[in-house]
Amino acid sequence: MTGTCTPEWIALDWGTSNLRAFAMQGATVLERAESNAGMRKLEPAQFEPVLQDLIDPWLHEGLGALIACGMVGARQGWAEAPYRAVPCAPVAEGLTQITMQSGHRVHIVSGLSQTAPPDVMRGEETQIAGFLSLNPKWDGVLCMPGTHTKWVHLSAGEVVSFQTFMTGEIFALLSESSVLRHSVVPDTWDGSAFQDAVADSLSHPERMAAKLFALRAGDLLKLNDQGSARAALSGYLIGMEIAATRPYWLGQNLAILGMGAQAQAYQGALSAQGVPATMVDTERATLAGLTAVHRQLKACI
Amino acid sequence: MTGTCTPEWIALDWGTSNLRAFAMQGATVLERAESNAGMRKLEPAQFEPVLQDLIDPWLHEGLGALIACGMVGARQGWAEAPYRAVPCAPVAEGLTQITMQSGHRVHIVSGLSQTAPPDVMRGEETQIAGFLSLNPKWDGVLCMPGTHTKWVHLSAGEVVSFQTFMTGEIFALLSESSVLRHSVVPDTWDGSAFQDAVADSLSHPERMAAKLFALRAGDLLKLNDQGSARAALSGYLIGMEIAATRPYWLGQNLAILGMGAQAQAYQGALSAQGVPATMVDTERATLAGLTAVHRQLKACI
Repeated sequence: MTGTCTPEWIALDWGTSNLRAFAMQGATVLERAESNAGMRKLEPAQFEPVLQDLIDPWLHEGLGALIACGMVGARQGWAEAPYRAVPCAPVAEGLTQITMQSGHRVHIVSGLSQTAPPDVMRGEETQIAGFLSLNPKWDGVLCMPGTHTKWVHLSAGEVVSFQTFMTGEIFALLSESSVLRHSVVPDTWDGSAFQDAVADSLSHPERMAAKLFALRAGDLLKLNDQGSARAALSGYLIGMEIAATRPYWLGQNLAILGMGAQAQAYQGALSAQGVPATMVDTERATLAGLTAVHRQLKACI
Repeated sequence: MTGTCTPEWIALDWGTSNLRAFAMQGATVLERAESNAGMRKLEPAQFEPVLQDLIDPWLHEGLGALIACGMVGARQGWAEAPYRAVPCAPVAEGLTQITMQSGHRVHIVSGLSQTAPPDVMRGEETQIAGFLSLNPKWDGVLCMPGTHTKWVHLSAGEVVSFQTFMTGEIFALLSESSVLRHSVVPDTWDGSAFQDAVADSLSHPERMAAKLFALRAGDLLKLNDQGSARAALSGYLIGMEIAATRPYWLGQNLAILGMGAQAQAYQGALSAQGVPATMVDTERATLAGLTAVHRQLKACI
């Protein structure tokens, strides 16, 4: 819930599932508000009233810009923010603008696209800009775990290229909706089953669909430890991804955006390959990115 | 619907989704009946009345055995038929028996199990027995496409080992329930997109989860042919499986059990690797298998 404060500007992280709003003074968060009104649940006409409701106590005459990133700018979102093609800086001028009935202006950050191989991102570009503003002149590879995990090659302040893996979505589908749901026990984790599965997939990624069925069969035949299937499933899938991205991360600086269980799984898998990775808080990166966009915007006015 | 005939015995193919019944005279089908009362939809007490209803016009005093294969013998089925461990003949004596209230006796064929790597089958063992009775002394590898595709190594009339891949179930989940559902157009097929994807996966199986997202991104960026995503998705997944089973099929006789679209996709993928495969009708194999079991049973009485 929001109280009453008079922010200089408002930062909006508006994704597929949630809307997070931050009342900002410069780079400082004065207050925060959250709603589960993600892009997926809204028709275009519903974005403005949902936002108005959530941030009403913050609206005042002297309020500057509202800056939004994420799926709010998708074709099915509030207003389509065209993709910018890599290689390019993660964020730039020329934001998509909407004027609300209250007169306040919302600026939506563009996503990034790549032609070969085809790829897109929305929201991550802002986190990348934030990461670079917190770590100026950093070159290397950023691993951004999520439903669709992104691996991003950064050099000289630009996104050179990136690759998206459906690993997180595949894990969710298999653990919740496939025959494995009978064997995958929620909230269990077996670290050594995870590492064994990562190593297996690194040697033989092609065997994934057989390894997965063996989890179910091992359970039926009472050959497996109870509670190891979830970590093994995760390990087989993340192991494939680590194998596929090896040309990306080999010999590079590596940072992982995220601190939760999924990010820790990636760090564990990479660490077992002798690859150290720094972990970075996602919300901090998002806010630093939106703040960098706000600074650019003020400089232009 | 069934009419009235007086079969010698009844063959039952009772799987997860359907029940198929055949009124038999020796190896000849007199009549058939079908119901969607698969194992998944039934509580243990419902199997008998469902079967009684379906085959009622065929029941007569001189009726011999009812012989059933498939998930009817699973732990969640009518009565659990214990697995037999490979290496072994696909079917053997010692069937699980149930006496119906009408006095008729149902015999359930056991599934097969394997310890290393863990694997199980139920129903396929009967198709394998049927295939071997139609092709005596055949040695080689049988590919059995399905929700869970099986690859079975046969030698000297025995199942030496087998491997199950979740490829079919993964394809269904991704095409119907993932972000790819927006890009996969039902009932489309692009043969060259399929073969390109198979070749891609054979070279780089570890890239699967990225290749899949590229199908979605290519669609968003209007870089892909409409209608190619479904075949490409199938090709990436089947390509991985062909890569994983190479040590199995290389230099072996190969037969594919099935004539439908999925079996044809496997044949196309294998054919592009220079591997010829015979295609065999599944129902014919199932009936030949149940008939072989019936012959064994009569010989024992």
